Amino acid sequence: MNFQLTIVKVGGQIIEEPDALKNLLKDFSRIAGYKMLIHGGGRMATELAEKLGVKSRMVDGRRITDEETLKIVTMVYAGLANKRIVAQLQALKVDAVGLTGADMNVILSQKRPVTDVDYGFVGDVKEVNIKALLEIINQGYVPVLAPLTHDGEGNLLNTNADTIAAEVACSLAGDFNVRLIYCFEKKGVLTDENDENSVIRNLDRELYQQYKEEGIIKAGMIPKLDNAFRAFASGVKEIIITSAAGMNTGKGTYIK
Amino acid sequence: MNFQLTIVKVGGQIIEEPDALKNLLKDFSRIAGYKMLIHGGGRMATELAEKLGVKSRMVDGRRITDEETLKIVTMVYAGLANKRIVAQLQALKVDAVGLTGADMNVILSQKRPVTDVDYGFVGDVKEVNIKALLEIINQGYVPVLAPLTHDGEGNLLNTNADTIAAEVACSLAGDFNVRLIYCFEKKGVLTDENDENSVIRNLDRELYQQYKEEGIIKAGMIPKLDNAFRAFASGVKEIIITSAAGMNTGKGTYIK
Repeated sequence: MNFQLTIVKVGGQIIEEPDALKNLLKDFSRIAGYKMLIHGGGRMATELAEKLGVKSRMVDGRRITDEETLKIVTMVYAGLANKRIVAQLQALKVDAVGLTGADMNVILSQKRPVTDVDYGFVGDVKEVNIKALLEIINQGYVPVLAPLTHDGEGNLLNTNADTIAAEVACSLAGDFNVRLIYCFEKKGVLTDENDENSVIRNLDRELYQQYKEEGIIKAGMIPKLDNAFRAFASGVKEIIITSAAGMNTGKGTYIK
Repeated sequence: MNFQLTIVKVGGQIIEEPDALKNLLKDFSRIAGYKMLIHGGGRMATELAEKLGVKSRMVDGRRITDEETLKIVTMVYAGLANKRIVAQLQALKVDAVGLTGADMNVILSQKRPVTDVDYGFVGDVKEVNIKALLEIINQGYVPVLAPLTHDGEGNLLNTNADTIAAEVACSLAGDFNVRLIYCFEKKGVLTDENDENSVIRNLDRELYQQYKEEGIIKAGMIPKLDNAFRAFASGVKEIIITSAAGMNTGKGTYIK
């Protein structure tokens, strides 16, 4: 029987509010067994870009990453966001190690080809280094992944944190019973975005398709849910979409 | 017999010039056996601080680190500088892993007490986690250390890179034959700062004392040399102060 590994993905909004982050990390520290954290930081990056007079351009919620923007996200994701989390986890006796995809060659990606849109220095995941992740997890360390990967040719690439969480979960599904928890600002996937209590308890592919067609599940949620269903299809045992407060309560939307 | 471990410290000036950095990393990749890199980044931090309108204040070459400055050095040291180096080393087939002192609790420090000067969020090294460093080195990874430590209570602290290099070298001197190479902008310790060819070949404590008294070795070099002599006294086998180009040539100043 495999051991359990809990992979938690937290969005940018949570990690930039000191009190919310503190609570979240406290909850994370209470998760028993092997675990891993993957964080965003987009809003902090937008804020720094504004201060530096670099324009943030988004297409379908994805950041166009030119050279200046790559510097900014590297500073924010791998620097400020990642190391703050690591230092706070250490204070909670969680032996965290902050990594980008370049560190230990953990996630190799390729620059997204230019089609209608040139996303710039954005990477699509090519390979997760299972061996390296297993080594550090089995030694008792808790990886904290920043949403940056590398192309193996010396370039860092900006990569969506939801996607990284799903890819890592899929890759480790053969070695662990993987639970994947997406924490975001809502209590789960809602049927009515104005009603926090309209959380869908169980969401399977059929219902997902139906809700998409009916316009109940809208554009913003679709990439996250596509990642979640891909993880489910790859053998990830449990996938929950919930709020930060829902991490240990069992509440939220379960992907089936 | 112990294996050899080469610890290279590179200053901020080298790492911010793309071509100089590329050459340096190529030289570093050629070092045989176990190795580790420790980098600065002060000039990049000063540049970012200027852009953000945050005033850089230095006392005796050490940066006063208030809250805003701590954010800046975290972004630059742990983010931009560290991850660029890691990505480029990966391209050179060096399996690098970028770490601050908070990651794997590698370097615990304490906030410097306020005396005449309040340095702010500056840490003095308390303990190097030999076990964690040995684990990753023995697995074939090459640590790339950013000059940040943590206090174990959730705070990152700015720590001088020369000091980190010396502390890590001292801590590992029992497990490896440690060579410590300080790369900076000169060819070595000079008797005449305007003559690049006036490199002191061998420098022992007695000569160091004499040169200090005669004003031949000046304030700027003293903290670096004090670190170097401390490392020598702690059993570090070879300590060289040299230029980036001198890394593999055997040229430079040898501390005896």
